[in-house]
Amino acid sequence: MAGSIFGKLLQISTFGESHGPALGVVIDGFPAGVRITPGEIQEYLDRRKPGRSEVSTARNEADRVEILSGILDGITTGTPIAMLIRNTDQHSADYEELKNCYRPGHADYGFERKYGFRDHRGGGRSSGRETAARVAAGALCRQLLKQLGIDCYAYTASIGPVHADPERFDRSLITKTATAMPDREADAEAMAYIAGCREELDSVGGTVVCLADHVPAGLGDPVFDKLDARLSYAVMSVGAVKAVEIGDGVQVSERRGSENNDAFLPERNERGDQRKKTNHAGGILGGISDGSQIVIRAHFKPTPSIAGEQETVNRDGEPVALRIRGRHDPVIVPRAVVVVESMCAITILDALLLNMTARADRIEEFYRFTAEKGR
Amino acid sequence: MAGSIFGKLLQISTFGESHGPALGVVIDGFPAGVRITPGEIQEYLDRRKPGRSEVSTARNEADRVEILSGILDGITTGTPIAMLIRNTDQHSADYEELKNCYRPGHADYGFERKYGFRDHRGGGRSSGRETAARVAAGALCRQLLKQLGIDCYAYTASIGPVHADPERFDRSLITKTATAMPDREADAEAMAYIAGCREELDSVGGTVVCLADHVPAGLGDPVFDKLDARLSYAVMSVGAVKAVEIGDGVQVSERRGSENNDAFLPERNERGDQRKKTNHAGGILGGISDGSQIVIRAHFKPTPSIAGEQETVNRDGEPVALRIRGRHDPVIVPRAVVVVESMCAITILDALLLNMTARADRIEEFYRFTAEKGR
Amino acid sequence: MAGSIFGKLLQISTFGESHGPALGVVIDGFPAGVRITPGEIQEYLDRRKPGRSEVSTARNEADRVEILSGILDGITTGTPIAMLIRNTDQHSADYEELKNCYRPGHADYGFERKYGFRDHRGGGRSSGRETAARVAAGALCRQLLKQLGIDCYAYTASIGPVHADPERFDRSLITKTATAMPDREADAEAMAYIAGCREELDSVGGTVVCLADHVPAGLGDPVFDKLDARLSYAVMSVGAVKAVEIGDGVQVSERRGSENNDAFLPERNERGDQRKKTNHAGGILGGISDGSQIVIRAHFKPTPSIAGEQETVNRDGEPVALRIRGRHDPVIVPRAVVVVESMCAITILDALLLNMTARADRIEEFYRFTAEKGR
Amino acid sequence: MAGSIFGKLLQISTFGESHGPALGVVIDGFPAGVRITPGEIQEYLDRRKPGRSEVSTARNEADRVEILSGILDGITTGTPIAMLIRNTDQHSADYEELKNCYRPGHADYGFERKYGFRDHRGGGRSSGRETAARVAAGALCRQLLKQLGIDCYAYTASIGPVHADPERFDRSLITKTATAMPDREADAEAMAYIAGCREELDSVGGTVVCLADHVPAGLGDPVFDKLDARLSYAVMSVGAVKAVEIGDGVQVSERRGSENNDAFLPERNERGDQRKKTNHAGGILGGISDGSQIVIRAHFKPTPSIAGEQETVNRDGEPVALRIRGRHDPVIVPRAVVVVESMCAITILDALLLNMTARADRIEEFYRFTAEKGR
Repeated sequence: MAGSIFGKLLQISTFGESHGPALGVVIDGFPAGVRITPGEIQEYLDRRKPGRSEVSTARNEADRVEILSGILDGITTGTPIAMLIRNTDQHSADYEELKNCYRPGHADYGFERKYGFRDHRGGGRSSGRETAARVAAGALCRQLLKQLGIDCYAYTASIGPVHADPERFDRSLITKTATAMPDREADAEAMAYIAGCREELDSVGGTVVCLADHVPAGLGDPVFDKLDARLSYAVMSVGAVKAVEIGDGVQVSERRGSENNDAFLPERNERGDQRKKTNHAGGILGGISDGSQIVIRAHFKPTPSIAGEQETVNRDGEPVALRIRGRHDPVIVPRAVVVVESMCAITILDALLLNMTARADRIEEFYRFTAEKGR
Repeated sequence: MAGSIFGKLLQISTFGESHGPALGVVIDGFPAGVRITPGEIQEYLDRRKPGRSEVSTARNEADRVEILSGILDGITTGTPIAMLIRNTDQHSADYEELKNCYRPGHADYGFERKYGFRDHRGGGRSSGRETAARVAAGALCRQLLKQLGIDCYAYTASIGPVHADPERFDRSLITKTATAMPDREADAEAMAYIAGCREELDSVGGTVVCLADHVPAGLGDPVFDKLDARLSYAVMSVGAVKAVEIGDGVQVSERRGSENNDAFLPERNERGDQRKKTNHAGGILGGISDGSQIVIRAHFKPTPSIAGEQETVNRDGEPVALRIRGRHDPVIVPRAVVVVESMCAITILDALLLNMTARADRIEEFYRFTAEKGR
Repeated sequence: MAGSIFGKLLQISTFGESHGPALGVVIDGFPAGVRITPGEIQEYLDRRKPGRSEVSTARNEADRVEILSGILDGITTGTPIAMLIRNTDQHSADYEELKNCYRPGHADYGFERKYGFRDHRGGGRSSGRETAARVAAGALCRQLLKQLGIDCYAYTASIGPVHADPERFDRSLITKTATAMPDREADAEAMAYIAGCREELDSVGGTVVCLADHVPAGLGDPVFDKLDARLSYAVMSVGAVKAVEIGDGVQVSERRGSENNDAFLPERNERGDQRKKTNHAGGILGGISDGSQIVIRAHFKPTPSIAGEQETVNRDGEPVALRIRGRHDPVIVPRAVVVVESMCAITILDALLLNMTARADRIEEFYRFTAEKGR
Repeated sequence: MAGSIFGKLLQISTFGESHGPALGVVIDGFPAGVRITPGEIQEYLDRRKPGRSEVSTARNEADRVEILSGILDGITTGTPIAMLIRNTDQHSADYEELKNCYRPGHADYGFERKYGFRDHRGGGRSSGRETAARVAAGALCRQLLKQLGIDCYAYTASIGPVHADPERFDRSLITKTATAMPDREADAEAMAYIAGCREELDSVGGTVVCLADHVPAGLGDPVFDKLDARLSYAVMSVGAVKAVEIGDGVQVSERRGSENNDAFLPERNERGDQRKKTNHAGGILGGISDGSQIVIRAHFKPTPSIAGEQETVNRDGEPVALRIRGRHDPVIVPRAVVVVESMCAITILDALLLNMTARADRIEEFYRFTAEKGR
């Protein structure tokens, strides 16, 4: 219960430190009978990989995933799926001088106060590298969601002051641009901005938007386990996220009810759900999906590891002037896109499984059916 | 697991519908030996009560809490604490005409799709009234936090376009102004704005800020159960919240690292934690408390129940022009302040308990000590 | 997490002390749309009630259950079902002299060491009275199981040296005999034995058997959450149980494999499951139900509260000669039958819900179906 | 939630199939700062290893454990500890002919009905090999328990009709005899008995007893999470266990209260807990440890894989005469001893951690202390 297990029916247990032998994930509760394309898991991991372009660190992580259990002849078996990613390209020496001081903006101080100890080599468990395990799990969840007709995808919506223009939205660009922006012009502008940050030994933040299409109405529970509450939990658990918005998010607090309410329309969508005139709610009302597109936005802070000089203290509380060496992304956002997508996919699939037991008539049908078929 | 239980070591299980016989909460895992002042629970509930002023509905809910278990002679016993609040002033008839149509901005549609059924009387389980049970639990948690030296409190930071001015912040006003703003001028302005909304048969949103002082460094876990992730989950689970920010929140996505990082200072605070020059992080770094003030902001949408005419459909999917009658707050925010405070108090106390088992040396000391004392 | 919540998808949260204002239970995760007969809940509770005959205490507990939420017009709504039972006939004075000493065979000592405190009035939370809340929950689960064609029932198999004879098994006697034995002769013999115990100021133990018919094959999970592991947990959590057996239980440790293995037969049962020649396994193989009758046996110790003199110590560790006054059953078993039945029903229903998400093809069918039906 | 995660504060997540690439375990919630001797983990695993003597299979599993995370320079870091055991000596071909039939006494049938599929190679996830992961976790828990002064150990108490004699109990023999019996004479007799079983192409069951000394009073929770309920759950989750007894177990159901109650004595033990005259209760009263020795007994069925001919059916329900080939232990008990010990150690450590938050005065002391020490 030290917080490395996520999910309710579908439980993701991750492990591993940035500079230890390996990272990994165990998925318990993943349904049997799903055909898995290992190549897709790898592609998914590659989207998180550094070194894709000058945006990200030069560190060369192979991030080869090995499936240890739960998949036989390409099909899930219903038993826990364990996936392993070995750490290969580690420069622990880069971190030697950080051993005795607390980096501003990092978990160093709290971590040491909690455990009486700190793995200074790249942040240890607090490293962004931990998210590779989430992405491996997310890849599987996304494959099952796709088979169920649900499409969940994320992109970079802004980097610093540069925002992708919704008018120019082109989904196919997400995996092509270095920033993961769906807008080539914004991408170019953002790249220039990032280059400026690097030159000034500085870093910058940004936002990621995740959308989910064709989610059936009825997912999520009315009180604590609202679908949006679970999504916020999932997305806020990604390092460097400092705000989560559902639908129109922060804008709603200045709105009138007459503007913000979404009118229901007589038409139905392809899943038989009632359409709405607008979707300010981001597809979730009262914590339950309403059949419209689900919209989540995450705000990432600028990378705290900057090359410029910073004030801090050492373990004895004495002032230290710090310059962080080593390979650090001036912006974390492009690599975080697939992490946000993964956390949302895991959460939506979990809600989808949980929803199956909500109604007695469905349970009865289910078991009558399995008896008839000799299961 | 239908999502009405919240918490890890400290588990809050709530029940009850808006128009059923009663609401209530069972708290499992609350420590033994805490002196409880029942009057404080009641005061706490009264802050959520409608009818405090013209801001809120005329509905006269007595909201008398009855303690059913877990407290003997004013002291908690370590066993589950159950608290009951009877519903008394119900006008179910007000809801008769809503039986067959889906109110925009409400859970009606998703709820019906989920359960094949809907308690149309005041939203049933989806009603804001459900939060009374959370507040009863929050009152207890806040009392224990106070005894441990931790101070957790919330206030209205804005209503529509009217923002409380940090320069005029006066904590004592929170429980005195009708809006729960800590600023008398902003309160007056906001009241005027709300009156305008009501006249125009409309409603408005707003923001609540919750602060926690003297939280020890080290609370929260590094990966999924980051303290901020748990807080987001807790706060986003409150109906009508559409965005949650930690510290500077949405602002960080446009910032540079050099601006956003908080420098550690050589000074220590009263708990022995290192002070920081700024607190953009809102007291949480890498998911772990850093000893500085914890800062959470929740954005509430405008009350979806408005008296003005709205487009929607009935259960057969036919268009309906809807006007919602009955008693509805034009703004939910002032009453929600104590709910946000409660959810944060519950979450912080839970993290505080969880943190006790993080280190073997402490565990050893703990059991050596209890053996020596004959426990 | 102080252990008053049981279950995975179906979660039962109980509260209340023997001599506090009330006992109760909140059931989260119970499916919507189940027609509930409140009279059956009451009948079920009455089976646990003392005073049914000279076997049990003269204490006159009304045990009237009040439904507070989750059921509307006799149908479950999918939201938490809270049920309340007020305590009425309490003789706290009977317990005054027990305040300072530890009763042998009771939780007194451990409880006080744990919480630094003890509710001496009737054992407080450790009282057998706590099980009334479990029975209320069990009554609901049994009703749903029945609707799904599953029949779960328990009976007294032995009291002290008197065993019910399987040859004379008559299920209809379970609710008629004072001992809850399905055998009138054994019942008479046991009653005489109990009368002897009472005369000698002593008490006696016994066994309860619980059976479940028509459970589909496939319930339970292969590793930790084996169906038998969950059932053992459930049944061992009932006070005074000191051993749990599945199928032939303790006998298997002296057996040969050739005797103990159950051969599969070519015939199928009414649910389409393969029949077996014998059922030594008690319907569970490798933790998963195999379609045969599920068989669980619980061993209860003799009531620890006896009128005869006992050695013990007081809170200062000084020797005390104790005679327990008040109303105490010389045998707990007849009243415990419905408690064991309840815990098994809750556990089996939980396993049945959990099993619904085991296979991707079923999940797909489920959601295709709900989309077609407009859910 | 497919049941491969065990524990509350201390959570063990296992994965891996008998004939897949690897087995493993992730432990979340293990405290930081525990010095681990990897050699002890290996010794512990070796006790479970087959091939130790003619009692067990000739299969040569290296069972080399690799630590992937959570331990740095021999000290636990507070982050998840992942351990991996590669499968090496697999004879999948042995299982080819079992592909289409259900082995009596095995999970085959239920597994296939659940998942629509079955990994026939050695039982897959249902194989006893799965317990290697539990043992790796148990080894760590036992090391921490030892540092806290708690001694938890198991042994073979009987094999078929041969029982170890308590009068001849010699703890040092447990790891020396081939049967893991603490009695050399019984060991010899049992070995002869086993040899007879093998000759007759048959197998035999037995019992394992686990003891825990110096457990402080106060562990366990009063209602569902009684310490004995959690231990039963833990031990019954081990494959082939069909009954669990606490203390005198099944004997109590025929006893009188005056015989079965354990009198408290004026003396105190080394931990300051009150001694008892007898320990029929096995160290647990009302679900809470009472300071006396904890006693658990598990009954194992005979190995279901026997070489003699058995009746069964194939996947089409047609009768089949089956002879199981391959390497199978005629008795599982000697290898299961360390598995039972592991599950008990995990459960007791979990209860010990959970107990730390039971009292507000201790929580206050804890945080006052950490503040003073600058934590």
